[in-house]
Amino acid sequence: MDGPAAGGARGRSTEDVRRHNLRALLGLVHTRGGATRAEVTRELGLNRSTTGTLVGALVEAGLLVEQAPVDQAPGRVGRPSLEVRPRDGGAEVLAGYVDVHAVQVVRVGLGGVVRGRRTVATPAPPSPERAAEVLAGAAAALLAESPPGLLAGVGVAVPGLVRAGDGVIAHAPNLDWRDVPLAALVTTALEDATGHRLRVDVANDADLGLLAEHRRGAAAGLTDVVYLCGTHGLGGGVLTGGHPLTGHRGYAGEVGHVSVDPDGRACRCGSRGCWESETLAAAWAEPFGLDGDAPDLADLVLARLAAGGVVSRRTRDKLSRAFARGLANIVHLFDPQAVVLGEGLWHRLWPEVREDVMPWVDRLVMPAMRAGVSVRTSALGEGSTVLGAAELALTPLLEDPLGPLAVDRERAPAVLRA
Amino acid sequence: MDGPAAGGARGRSTEDVRRHNLRALLGLVHTRGGATRAEVTRELGLNRSTTGTLVGALVEAGLLVEQAPVDQAPGRVGRPSLEVRPRDGGAEVLAGYVDVHAVQVVRVGLGGVVRGRRTVATPAPPSPERAAEVLAGAAAALLAESPPGLLAGVGVAVPGLVRAGDGVIAHAPNLDWRDVPLAALVTTALEDATGHRLRVDVANDADLGLLAEHRRGAAAGLTDVVYLCGTHGLGGGVLTGGHPLTGHRGYAGEVGHVSVDPDGRACRCGSRGCWESETLAAAWAEPFGLDGDAPDLADLVLARLAAGGVVSRRTRDKLSRAFARGLANIVHLFDPQAVVLGEGLWHRLWPEVREDVMPWVDRLVMPAMRAGVSVRTSALGEGSTVLGAAELALTPLLEDPLGPLAVDRERAPAVLRA
Repeated sequence: MDGPAAGGARGRSTEDVRRHNLRALLGLVHTRGGATRAEVTRELGLNRSTTGTLVGALVEAGLLVEQAPVDQAPGRVGRPSLEVRPRDGGAEVLAGYVDVHAVQVVRVGLGGVVRGRRTVATPAPPSPERAAEVLAGAAAALLAESPPGLLAGVGVAVPGLVRAGDGVIAHAPNLDWRDVPLAALVTTALEDATGHRLRVDVANDADLGLLAEHRRGAAAGLTDVVYLCGTHGLGGGVLTGGHPLTGHRGYAGEVGHVSVDPDGRACRCGSRGCWESETLAAAWAEPFGLDGDAPDLADLVLARLAAGGVVSRRTRDKLSRAFARGLANIVHLFDPQAVVLGEGLWHRLWPEVREDVMPWVDRLVMPAMRAGVSVRTSALGEGSTVLGAAELALTPLLEDPLGPLAVDRERAPAVLRA
Repeated sequence: MDGPAAGGARGRSTEDVRRHNLRALLGLVHTRGGATRAEVTRELGLNRSTTGTLVGALVEAGLLVEQAPVDQAPGRVGRPSLEVRPRDGGAEVLAGYVDVHAVQVVRVGLGGVVRGRRTVATPAPPSPERAAEVLAGAAAALLAESPPGLLAGVGVAVPGLVRAGDGVIAHAPNLDWRDVPLAALVTTALEDATGHRLRVDVANDADLGLLAEHRRGAAAGLTDVVYLCGTHGLGGGVLTGGHPLTGHRGYAGEVGHVSVDPDGRACRCGSRGCWESETLAAAWAEPFGLDGDAPDLADLVLARLAAGGVVSRRTRDKLSRAFARGLANIVHLFDPQAVVLGEGLWHRLWPEVREDVMPWVDRLVMPAMRAGVSVRTSALGEGSTVLGAAELALTPLLEDPLGPLAVDRERAPAVLRA
């Protein structure tokens, strides 16, 4: 990121500088949850009067408030230093996660505060139309609880290849979707369900989990990270040199579809022996005689592991080793500071299998590359993906806080303002 | 890259703008080999008098000349448009490539013109000291042919993990080197052999092959590319979103050490079934009864393939499929526009095996990701790595054309100037 007071690379006007500084200020408050004027002044390298003007503009716009810090020590002597915080009932977004067995929707305010959450189970992988309808219904129910201030947009996470530029889902193997214009479907369904036409952005679930963990979770402050997630499919999001790895069309980072065994089982992607098919749902379900499509597969596997026995031991050893081989591949490919296990099967199993996996990682990674790489679980737990979708939806507002309501009017001309 | 006339992100002075424009001008002439003032003015978005001043400064510094284009049509009517070109006898660099069986050294002028080349065979993989000595001896012999103008630096390519920052080779499995400060060794050896203390930069061979192919070869104009090279080891260099993938410490892109077969052969990296060990020297040599360490292995393999027969057919099929699986992995990981086969075994074999490999790539890559990815051989042929080392050595000069002779005086206080 550029220094807070610096403009872009192509010359700058007073207005550019102001926009840049507003962005830096709102970003700081959003990431941190709150900051005093003195902290803002110091950390953004501004002078005090500039900070005052910028805070005033964002307060006036209804995005921030200034108030005594919530954790002000009682009995403290002297006037409390006011804290700049997101305004309750200020800017919010809706975020959804369409997965194989459920559609999640959350309502999230600036500052990352979750204001409501719905999860709707879908017995079979939903069709695109069904997914949009379920998502819109849950969103309408959440909005009915209390009117939002500024509804800045909608973000949707999907386990699949999402094309950069137009957000079309080129292929989602585990949903069996191809060439789905999901943003358009969700926009229409939301308009039907809520009466509001909102901007909808769609992205890959792992890329969004990474975004959330990078903004306020297990990857905060890091520049080189690989994020993994999923139970029935293994998604990957990669941060390299501080930038998300997107590839030419936005499809990069499909670490689950690295083929690691020429004699392995058939994968839903059409290949064979992928890291996904060798270490995720089917691979765990088969030896235990479980249904690989079961929504609660992680619980079932954990119960089998707890029960112990020969099958349990053999399965744990074999899959721990296979997972470690994939982790070693990731280290060799990306030289990361950390691999983050986000929501999904391996995140759930990790406390149980960590001690089996890590010695293999130590053994398989070239020693020069092994040192300094940590494997850790996500800090946001099972919620990182949908929180990442919320961060996606907030991005236009964060980029241009006093811009055209952070809305691309071509795509979604109306927004809700109290 | 920034626009030619724009400064950095943190405010800019007249001097910054001048330096930026000098850099843009020298970069254009270097990449293109030559350009008229009118082309420079148009392509860099400058005005004519600025172009004149900048060209004048670089001519005066001895870096460029203005002359009639070499391909000026005879008998053409009117005054020929003068072309700005690198000056013969102007800035040059030395570049080396230390590989398992040979040390190559080239002398390269601004504009990428090769002014001399030496290759010294090394019967066994050389020790670091021996490699530095051979490289310095060949460099001295090349310099003895004619005195250079400005010797701007030395670049060295090595098949191994090169640490960003200090250039120490953390591990080069096929040379059996660990923690080797090669830049320091080469600096001393060059001083002994030539009397000159020069700046020496070291980088991974595949990263440098990619740099050369991107600057003037098969990857020119692309933003997302994976470059592969090697005969006894398989190196990878990755360009993503226009930036080289380096990872946290500079070790990223080790695509050769992605483990693709749990039952595969032991790899020199310490793991098993790596893409390198499954598809490079040993994998081809074994079925044909050849010596996997033979320097001319590619010739020997091609002769066996030409002779045909059952072993030939089976070997070709098996290894083509294994190589295709690795290519599919690369597409799934990086979503590139092109995979470039740089110097080494697969580059040599490609005309022979292409028709065997590509149908497997078509079959193994998810259809949505397959379209639009090409697999091509390098345009610079067997020389891309060492030419990339020359580009590395030229980088400081290109970054700051009239700076302190493009030399880091702390590290290398003296340079040669005619």
